[in-house]
Amino acid sequence: MNFREKLSNIVHEHDSLVCVGLDVDKEKMPQFLFESSKHPYLEFNKSIIESTKDLVCAYKLNMAFYEVFGKEGFNLLEKTIKNIPKEIIVILDGKRNDIGNTAKKYAQSLFETYHADAVTVNPYLGKDSVMPFLEYKDKCSFILCRTSNPSATDFQDLKVSSTPLYQLVAQKIKEWNIYENCGAVVGATYPDELKIIRDILGEDVPLLIPGIGKQGGDVEKTVKYGTNKEGKMALINSSREIIFAGDKEDFADKSRDKASSLRKEINKYR
Amino acid sequence: MNFREKLSNIVHEHDSLVCVGLDVDKEKMPQFLFESSKHPYLEFNKSIIESTKDLVCAYKLNMAFYEVFGKEGFNLLEKTIKNIPKEIIVILDGKRNDIGNTAKKYAQSLFETYHADAVTVNPYLGKDSVMPFLEYKDKCSFILCRTSNPSATDFQDLKVSSTPLYQLVAQKIKEWNIYENCGAVVGATYPDELKIIRDILGEDVPLLIPGIGKQGGDVEKTVKYGTNKEGKMALINSSREIIFAGDKEDFADKSRDKASSLRKEINKYR
Repeated sequence: MNFREKLSNIVHEHDSLVCVGLDVDKEKMPQFLFESSKHPYLEFNKSIIESTKDLVCAYKLNMAFYEVFGKEGFNLLEKTIKNIPKEIIVILDGKRNDIGNTAKKYAQSLFETYHADAVTVNPYLGKDSVMPFLEYKDKCSFILCRTSNPSATDFQDLKVSSTPLYQLVAQKIKEWNIYENCGAVVGATYPDELKIIRDILGEDVPLLIPGIGKQGGDVEKTVKYGTNKEGKMALINSSREIIFAGDKEDFADKSRDKASSLRKEINKYR
Repeated sequence: MNFREKLSNIVHEHDSLVCVGLDVDKEKMPQFLFESSKHPYLEFNKSIIESTKDLVCAYKLNMAFYEVFGKEGFNLLEKTIKNIPKEIIVILDGKRNDIGNTAKKYAQSLFETYHADAVTVNPYLGKDSVMPFLEYKDKCSFILCRTSNPSATDFQDLKVSSTPLYQLVAQKIKEWNIYENCGAVVGATYPDELKIIRDILGEDVPLLIPGIGKQGGDVEKTVKYGTNKEGKMALINSSREIIFAGDKEDFADKSRDKASSLRKEINKYR
């Protein structure tokens, strides 16, 4: 089963476009876990997964939040992934990229060592640096097209002839999509750009959309512009809003409530 | 002591601009190590360091080659770094980048968890994603400006008004350099672009220059265009050519010979 089939199945089964970002962060996690548990981070992730797993289509793990623990972090990454039910998409968000020889190692690491279904890839080095990821034909590589941060405009808005760079990146993604396993990362904080990118990429390219919640992206516009005509092929990510919803013993229930209401809100506009 | 002082000291002391890339790779390493040693990768790195440490100004560890081993890789990374003499520059080449909140974690991971002197950073997300690295004022962040791979042209050569993107990136690096801790990555495979970038960045910005050796960059032009007027502020990297120079018991001596002749060749043109 390839990525798109797996995504379609789980979106249908859970009636959800919600992707939960498992970005562990000591300062924001329930503090009691650090007293009561030997493995507070793993317990935190397990609880969030357990309480939200029927409401989501994907979990996204941002590798920065694991790498910072050194080798222990990769242990945690591995164990967390093992706790995610097989039918749910696992996205490793590392925004990796390098020259071809090295990109191969990153692709091997993410897809083989950690068994990711999908990854995020930075396009700045061009085609030969992206192809080693795309060689994993049943996986999906979400290429950074329009990121959600304020400084996204620094380069991504630069006009080349009269076309902004992010649109050229979208055109390249279309061109690189020979195995039909490209996706694109587009920030919800830029709805107009989201619409343009969906138009360029057509109906079948999945979009990974961060930026709702704390970053301020609008859910209605995100759904309207980000999904295809069937209301699909979008993974709408929320991290902090969901996983840090509570700081007491019932934190996992609070996360469930947040995930549930986000799913509902999204589905209202699909 | 900040990065530039540390770099100046070691360049002076070892009379060398050579940076050796410690990119472990099972297929290319001496195979006897996998039979004779319990920790073949660490032993390999230790031998290379031992045999080249008086000839180099820096070691660069490309994180892809460590990440691929999972948590064991980070163990290896840590132990390798511990074997590098304190006065030599350690560059962690991860080409990391993300939105501000996450970039902070990457910066913390690379500079605090792994004690890197310098890192490589991808600029595609713009200023707010680079600043968390630059907040480490005594360290150096080498921002990808012109990479060494063939597809570098895909985006980096796009003309914005009439200026290619890589030159705008160089201009931004200059603008972001408020703490005087920015560097730039420029591939030796593009000597004309190297010259232009050195002109834009001036005398004091260190350039990390991969692409000589297997990739075909010319040493004379690299030194001529990449160094400043004093023949300094360039780190000329060679990985495979040096570390995989031999495949028998004397592999470390072969690496030493290669490092030594590269230093000599570079110094001829300084």
